Amino acid sequence: MEIEIQLTREPIIAPKLAEEFSGSAGALAEFSGNVRASENGAAIAALEYEAYSPMAENEIRRILESLAEKFPCLAVSVIHRLGIIPVGETAIYLGMAAKHRGEAFGLLTEFMNRLKQDVPIWKRRALSPAEFSALIKS
Amino acid sequence: MEIEIQLTREPIIAPKLAEEFSGSAGALAEFSGNVRASENGAAIAALEYEAYSPMAENEIRRILESLAEKFPCLAVSVIHRLGIIPVGETAIYLGMAAKHRGEAFGLLTEFMNRLKQDVPIWKRRALSPAEFSALIKS
Repeated sequence: MEIEIQLTREPIIAPKLAEEFSGSAGALAEFSGNVRASENGAAIAALEYEAYSPMAENEIRRILESLAEKFPCLAVSVIHRLGIIPVGETAIYLGMAAKHRGEAFGLLTEFMNRLKQDVPIWKRRALSPAEFSALIKS
Repeated sequence: MEIEIQLTREPIIAPKLAEEFSGSAGALAEFSGNVRASENGAAIAALEYEAYSPMAENEIRRILESLAEKFPCLAVSVIHRLGIIPVGETAIYLGMAAKHRGEAFGLLTEFMNRLKQDVPIWKRRALSPAEFSALIKS
């Protein structure tokens, strides 16, 4: 299983798995976890994510390698954005190419559960519309 | 839950769920079931799908409505292509926008299982490279 992991402070650009695995992948699945405009009932304008980057990347790789036996996809790409992420933009992207859909859906579901439990990436704070405006003007 | 269903003989164009649900959807999931270059060990160039279209559309809607209670997404789009579909192209597309990933993953997995079991859409035949060449030249 090809594994690609990125932690980035830039907007996420999804890889072109459909083109790369054209003819070999019967199943392509993509997931984006995006910032919503409210958190715990309050309007927000952005979230800030932080990570221990090398540790987070190692841990993501370890989880993917441990899931590869049960859910042998052709390729998986995990991209997590860090820093301040405005509402509507993507914090985490997962893309999978697999022969059959079962492996792709299994990997997607299990990986996301493990990510939340085990990987040192966390929401540091939510920025209100006023805080976010002040920040982008500064 | 907004439901969009299309059965089409043209290449599938994915809807822009990320834009439409920007700020409200925390989870966007997309799945494409694509034609692979081999079937049962033999090289193929295309698959042909057929359907009882009105019945298939009704049945897809019925399944989605029955799953909406357990997996209440904001929107789901199901597009199935019919006719001759060349290798690498998409036969079935599913797109979901949801507040949280659990609903999206649940709907995706369960819907695909039910589609295969209950909906009158079937692979009519696999076309070999020679058959497919002859067909597109005719």
